[in-house]
Amino acid sequence: MKNVLFNLRENQLSNSLNHSVLYNAFDPLMISDYLKQINQKVTYLLEDKSKKGIDLIQPSNLLNIVKQLVNHDFKHKTVLERFSSIIDLHISTGIRVNSTGYMARQFSSVVPVAAMYDTISSMCPQPASFYECGPLPNVVDKIMAEEFSHFLGWENENFDMISTSGASLANLTAVTAARNLKFPDILQHGNLAQNGYKPAIAIGNDAHFSVSRIAGILGIGQENVILLPVNEQRQICIKEAKIELENAQKRGLRVFCIVASAGSTSVGAIDPLKELSELAHQYNAWFHVDAAHDGAFLVSDQLRGKVKDLSYADSFCLDAHKTLFVPAACTLLFYKNADYAHLSFPSHASYVAEEDEISCFESGTKNFECTKRPSILNLWVVWALYGRELFEEKLNYLVELTVQAYHYIRSLNDFEVLHVPESNILCFRYTPAGVPDQQLNRLQLNIRDALREGGQHFISKVDLDNVTALRLVMMNHEITISDVMDLISAIRKTTKNISIVK
Amino acid sequence: MKNVLFNLRENQLSNSLNHSVLYNAFDPLMISDYLKQINQKVTYLLEDKSKKGIDLIQPSNLLNIVKQLVNHDFKHKTVLERFSSIIDLHISTGIRVNSTGYMARQFSSVVPVAAMYDTISSMCPQPASFYECGPLPNVVDKIMAEEFSHFLGWENENFDMISTSGASLANLTAVTAARNLKFPDILQHGNLAQNGYKPAIAIGNDAHFSVSRIAGILGIGQENVILLPVNEQRQICIKEAKIELENAQKRGLRVFCIVASAGSTSVGAIDPLKELSELAHQYNAWFHVDAAHDGAFLVSDQLRGKVKDLSYADSFCLDAHKTLFVPAACTLLFYKNADYAHLSFPSHASYVAEEDEISCFESGTKNFECTKRPSILNLWVVWALYGRELFEEKLNYLVELTVQAYHYIRSLNDFEVLHVPESNILCFRYTPAGVPDQQLNRLQLNIRDALREGGQHFISKVDLDNVTALRLVMMNHEITISDVMDLISAIRKTTKNISIVK
Repeated sequence: MKNVLFNLRENQLSNSLNHSVLYNAFDPLMISDYLKQINQKVTYLLEDKSKKGIDLIQPSNLLNIVKQLVNHDFKHKTVLERFSSIIDLHISTGIRVNSTGYMARQFSSVVPVAAMYDTISSMCPQPASFYECGPLPNVVDKIMAEEFSHFLGWENENFDMISTSGASLANLTAVTAARNLKFPDILQHGNLAQNGYKPAIAIGNDAHFSVSRIAGILGIGQENVILLPVNEQRQICIKEAKIELENAQKRGLRVFCIVASAGSTSVGAIDPLKELSELAHQYNAWFHVDAAHDGAFLVSDQLRGKVKDLSYADSFCLDAHKTLFVPAACTLLFYKNADYAHLSFPSHASYVAEEDEISCFESGTKNFECTKRPSILNLWVVWALYGRELFEEKLNYLVELTVQAYHYIRSLNDFEVLHVPESNILCFRYTPAGVPDQQLNRLQLNIRDALREGGQHFISKVDLDNVTALRLVMMNHEITISDVMDLISAIRKTTKNISIVK
Repeated sequence: MKNVLFNLRENQLSNSLNHSVLYNAFDPLMISDYLKQINQKVTYLLEDKSKKGIDLIQPSNLLNIVKQLVNHDFKHKTVLERFSSIIDLHISTGIRVNSTGYMARQFSSVVPVAAMYDTISSMCPQPASFYECGPLPNVVDKIMAEEFSHFLGWENENFDMISTSGASLANLTAVTAARNLKFPDILQHGNLAQNGYKPAIAIGNDAHFSVSRIAGILGIGQENVILLPVNEQRQICIKEAKIELENAQKRGLRVFCIVASAGSTSVGAIDPLKELSELAHQYNAWFHVDAAHDGAFLVSDQLRGKVKDLSYADSFCLDAHKTLFVPAACTLLFYKNADYAHLSFPSHASYVAEEDEISCFESGTKNFECTKRPSILNLWVVWALYGRELFEEKLNYLVELTVQAYHYIRSLNDFEVLHVPESNILCFRYTPAGVPDQQLNRLQLNIRDALREGGQHFISKVDLDNVTALRLVMMNHEITISDVMDLISAIRKTTKNISIVK
């Protein structure tokens, strides 16, 4: 009788859903139609060899376009037609990472199979912080860790690697572990309990802004962030670093963590890692390296030497979504001592904890994130299908191309390069005869803007102390030196129309 | 002459790449082959109506399987065959969110078009923290914010919404803003400078573990986290909260933020939001609500009443990747006062800042993340193509189904339910005659394990104070009350084989 009652209710519910929006959206027959659209758009994207910058549309205009996509007229179109329009808008307003006109930023042209794998990751959740629900990413974390251990000479170390969504989060995770190790009372009693000690961190003057942000979050205070000066190649200068650390100590600060870069966002400089690790050791400080950009060099026999001293770090992170060419965000955070990986976020939750063999594969206790996208799988899929060679080929090529661009631009009388490139980043200035020094900064900015508006070239600008420079980041392996030559011509040509130069 | 030299070099480089692994991986002709595989697997996934739990494989076994996928024999297979094997492994080890056997966790069956859109998001980056490179997600943030303003009655407020990768990050972002507002000196001078004041936060006893973690990160100290007791329905008890806050003040603590839940992870309880907002006001504290699970009720006319008091919060977040059925991680963080959204992470970076109209669309200054996945687009695509109705239909159904399950299980003599469900979460226990009270906890745990091993049903367990319970989370709209009946039968049947019951 009871069952009859409930079966009745069930039928009512089911009937009301039969022809619903919901059931249309989950209709298996739609899958192939959607994928046909994606196939067409992505294939065209890869085949299109035209030179494209970005189409920087004003927010208010874009807002209108987007609103039209949901308005009444638009609703008369089929779902597929509307889906197609949305993809077109996405592509036309996005960065053209597959075009040879794109040299602006650290976003890569993504290995297609990694991008397509996202559909599987999204349809079949494997939340990466729990072994129970996400066994594959937890196991793959271990496999990728093992691969990297060979590059680091860490095979016999008690090391650990966790994957996080982005280097900002990896840096926060590592610095928090450092603080909890060096100030074990803070977790329980708070910063206020550290009478007589002022927790402080030391970072390079060119460190990514996310690093100094951490001090703000942790309640260390910006005034307790020691900025280590950089040399001409914009690496932390060891001699001056020693002076700064000594001064900090005299001021009553306890530097518990030194954060270096490999390479820096602005010019791609790699700090002197071994010397800094020794300095950290001397001050009983944790040594963390933000190797978001260049840590990937570890996979290349040709480039590994540049970052081999990452093996001296207590922790470091690298962004696979930058220089290992997978979708964002996929960051690998390495700990030389696995025991310290649990220090960042000690906590318990009854629906999370497991007790057995599984617990050593469980990344949840080491991760800030609870529902974590299994982005390590995108990296591993490429690794499994194409091998280390793919990453190596692309990295080697991009760095070689940047060296070529350096030699080429350096050879031009009306340009100057600002540094010898360590990686795939190059900063330079256009310095044509007749432009007064005090107008050069403005000129670079105007060139960037004018090129952007032209729609064929997309480069970035950067301020190095008081010098504004143009910045190339080579992330697309289809770019050749002739594209750089085109860019130089475009800069010369566009400058003729820039009013700042009179 | 110079150009000749560089053209030569270029040709050398290009030739060496012509037949490389790299060019195979980027071959546009592969796209349709890959997508055919995805089409086949995803279509089957949606058509498969069999009842599936999870196949909990031991890490060492899975490690071996994964290693075989990259070993020598495997490498003799074509890339497509290997891709197919990897997807199969992913699906077979993942959570079966599309099966009627899945009632375990807060991961949803994802709207297929949102999952497929990830391929576009990954191939054509629109990093969401920068308008220049990600105009679409920045504009769409505004559009989704506007949609939600109607549900909140905030149309005329100076409110703001940012999207983050997960509620842990949203909670950290909001609580950091609260701290920086209430203790404006900390950012510059650090926690130590607050002589005489001890920063503290107050959270519900059932708050998600990520909330108390925040205190650890911020350097507040766990002992300065005031735990507010919960009542029988596991909501924060206002009467006791008042006592706790008064005691905290007497102990010299300055509670700068009260964090409530809507609903709690364990049972889905919604705290008394209006009363708590008044209490926060009385203590000059910020009122934040972790509405990761139930905030989505705002979109449903039928369910909105349950969470309408979110409009009293200074900030709250909701997880679209939970109860708006899009891929992880997509969290919306709302601020009642837009001016405060900039407080969390004040910073500057020369390659980030823009100066003009764009800056008010720039979410980078309000976001922890630098390279942020534009996951707001997955939500918007579904919203644009299927409308609010889709979310409303699914939410209404899931909550209605949970109420049915409550009435059904409550009507059984050998089961007890632990609460009236507020959302789509229901906790209950199997209490057959003859099992001593002190064994009941162990029994629930064993049932969970045995069901999991059986491979047809996947439910979770939760510890409520000292009571272990079974927990259902209804996230798949294809589940009906007859599936709950099947589950109950399976529990009875499986218990016969559990040795703890003697």
